[in-house]
Amino acid sequence: MFNIIRPSLLIDESKARKNIKRMAEKAAKNNLIFRPHFKTHQSVQIGEWYREEGVTKITVSSVSMAEKFAAAGWNDITLAFPVNQLEIENINKLSAKIKLNLLVESVDVFNAIEAKLQTPVDFYIKIDTGYHRTGIDPLNLEMIDELINKIKVRHRFAGFLTHAGHTYKARSIEEISKINEIQIKHMTELRNYFSGEKDIICSVGDTPICSVIDDFKGVDEIRPGNFVFYDIMQEQIGSCSFNDIAVCMAVPVVAVHKERKEIVVYGGGVHLSKEYILYDAAAVYGLPVLINNEGWTEPLKESYVKSLSQEHGIVKLHDDYMDVIKPGDVIGILPVHSCLSADLMKEYLFI
Amino acid sequence: MFNIIRPSLLIDESKARKNIKRMAEKAAKNNLIFRPHFKTHQSVQIGEWYREEGVTKITVSSVSMAEKFAAAGWNDITLAFPVNQLEIENINKLSAKIKLNLLVESVDVFNAIEAKLQTPVDFYIKIDTGYHRTGIDPLNLEMIDELINKIKVRHRFAGFLTHAGHTYKARSIEEISKINEIQIKHMTELRNYFSGEKDIICSVGDTPICSVIDDFKGVDEIRPGNFVFYDIMQEQIGSCSFNDIAVCMAVPVVAVHKERKEIVVYGGGVHLSKEYILYDAAAVYGLPVLINNEGWTEPLKESYVKSLSQEHGIVKLHDDYMDVIKPGDVIGILPVHSCLSADLMKEYLFI
Repeated sequence: MFNIIRPSLLIDESKARKNIKRMAEKAAKNNLIFRPHFKTHQSVQIGEWYREEGVTKITVSSVSMAEKFAAAGWNDITLAFPVNQLEIENINKLSAKIKLNLLVESVDVFNAIEAKLQTPVDFYIKIDTGYHRTGIDPLNLEMIDELINKIKVRHRFAGFLTHAGHTYKARSIEEISKINEIQIKHMTELRNYFSGEKDIICSVGDTPICSVIDDFKGVDEIRPGNFVFYDIMQEQIGSCSFNDIAVCMAVPVVAVHKERKEIVVYGGGVHLSKEYILYDAAAVYGLPVLINNEGWTEPLKESYVKSLSQEHGIVKLHDDYMDVIKPGDVIGILPVHSCLSADLMKEYLFI
Repeated sequence: MFNIIRPSLLIDESKARKNIKRMAEKAAKNNLIFRPHFKTHQSVQIGEWYREEGVTKITVSSVSMAEKFAAAGWNDITLAFPVNQLEIENINKLSAKIKLNLLVESVDVFNAIEAKLQTPVDFYIKIDTGYHRTGIDPLNLEMIDELINKIKVRHRFAGFLTHAGHTYKARSIEEISKINEIQIKHMTELRNYFSGEKDIICSVGDTPICSVIDDFKGVDEIRPGNFVFYDIMQEQIGSCSFNDIAVCMAVPVVAVHKERKEIVVYGGGVHLSKEYILYDAAAVYGLPVLINNEGWTEPLKESYVKSLSQEHGIVKLHDDYMDVIKPGDVIGILPVHSCLSADLMKEYLFI
C-alpha cells in the first residue's frame, strides 16, 4: 500500500469522514451548533473534510492552533482553554482578523485580559460540572454574575461552556448518561437563573457524551474532537466500535521472541504516547492489527502492546500469530489515545 | 530571564555540562569507552558539549538520529536498536560515509540485512541480561556462536551489548548493584566462552548503573543518555539529586483554584509526556519549582503535578504557595522522564 519503513500514522479517510458525517447529522437533527474540536487532528487537510459537512465554527485548545486554522481560512474559533494572559499580543492579532471566542473562569484573569484586549470579543464562562479540572462551580452564582456584568461592559457574554472530561473514566452508557444528566442540570439551572441574558449558548464538549447520548435538550452547541479518529480508549468507554477507529500506527517488526510470545516493533512512546488503559488489570498501550489492502483488520485476539520505551514497542501475541508475523513485516497498532499519537506524529498517511 | 509565553523547555547548561563532565571522568578513570546515548537530547548543540569533553563515539536509537548526527560531523555511531531491515537503503548510505555499528539478535534478521548491506560494518550482538525487552539469552551459546561466525564472513564482530533497562524499576543502590552484578556476570561469561574473539567490546548502557556504580570491571564501554539532563524518576531511583536535574519545563499559570489547592498550567501531555512515577501510591507527572534568575528552585514542598490532559496540567500546591502563585506567572515543572519531554519539545531555551 505504502512503502512504510518507519512508524507512520495511517488515517482511514472513509472512516474519519463517516465519523464526521455521523456527528454532523446528529448535531443537525438536534438543532445544535456543531463546533468540533480540532486539537485531535490538528490538520488543515482534515479540517476541509469538516467544511464539506457544512462546519464553519471550530474549537481549538491553544493560541498556536487558533493561528494555524485562522491562516487556513477558519474565522470563528473558540479557544477552549483558560485564557493565557501572557499570549495577549497574539490574541489581539488574531481577534483583529477573526471571530475569536475566549474562556474565562475568574474575575482577576478577566481584568488582566480586558485591560489589554484591543478588540471586543465573545466571552464564554467556563463552568465545572464535575470534572474538576478547571472552571467555576455552577453554584457560585455571585462570581458568575460579577463576571457577566464585567464582560458586558465592553464585550459580549456568549454563554456557558463546560467539558465533562470525567466521561473518559466511564465504562458504560449508564455512567456516561449519569454524567450528562448532571451536566445538563447545571447548565439548565444557569440558563434559567440568568434568563435575562439573551441568545446565550450552552456548550458541551466530550466525545463519549456526544457519541452515545441522543437527547441534547438544554444544549445549544457540541464540541467533540476525539470522535474523528476514535481509539481503543473510546471503544472501551463505549463511544465507538473497533470498526469506527480511523487511525492506526503502522510499525516495522524488528524482532520476534517466540519463547515469551512477544515481538519488538519500531514504535514507542515517542510515537504512540505513554497513555495506557487497563484490560483485566493489565496496562495496555495499544492493540495490534494486521495491515491489508483495505486498511487494517480487527484487533488480533488475545494480543496487546505490553510496554513502550522511547522507540521500542513490546507486543504480546497470541500463539496463532507467532509464526505469521516476522521481522521485516509492518503491522498496525490501534492507539490508546488518538489525540496524543496524532500530536506526536504531526504527519499522516491517508488511505 | 526569557519572555516565556508558552510551555518552553529550559536547559541549565552548567548543570548539563557538569553531568557530562562527571560521567566522562568516571569513564576515563575506569578506562572505559564513553559512548553516550544521544536519544535523550537529540540536539546538535548539546552534542558539542560532549565533544568538548573528548567524546568521539556516540549511540543513537534510530536511523534518523544517526543521519542527523552524521550530518553534524559524528562519524562513529552505534545504532542501539534491533536493526530494522526496512531501512536498509538509509543504512547503506550512512555506512558508506561513517563507521556505523549495528545490533543483531537473530540469525534471520542478520541474513536479511547481510544480503543487502553494501559495506562491511561492525556488528554487536544484543544480549538480554535481564530486562527482557529484547536481545539474546546469554545462555543461548549456540545461537550466539552461529551469529558470530556468520558476522565474521564479511563483517567485524565488535562485541556484546546489553541494556539493563530494568534498573528504571529499582529504587535503591542495592537493587541497582544487584542488577549490575548479574549483567556483569553474563557479559564476563560470554567474554570467557568466546575468548578466541579478539578485541571485543562489552558495552552496557543504563543511566542508573552508570551513575551509582564505581567498579566497572568486565565492562569496556558505557552508553548512558538520560544522565545529561536527569529527571525526577532518576532522582527517585537514586541516580542523582534534584540539584543535578538540568531540565525544567517552564509553564504559564492560567488558573488558580484555592478551594482545592490546585492551579492549572498551560503545559500538558503533549509537552511533558504522560509518563508518571508513584510517590506514596499517588501518580505524579512532574514536580513544580519556582523559576528565578539563576534557573529554578528545589521542588516546592508537598506539591506535585496531579494530572495532565493534552494542554492542561493540574498542579497540587502546598498551602504556602497558594497566595504566591498567580495566573500570568510562569512556574517550572521538573519532568518525570526527560528523554520523552525533550523529544516532545524539540527546542530548548538554554540558561
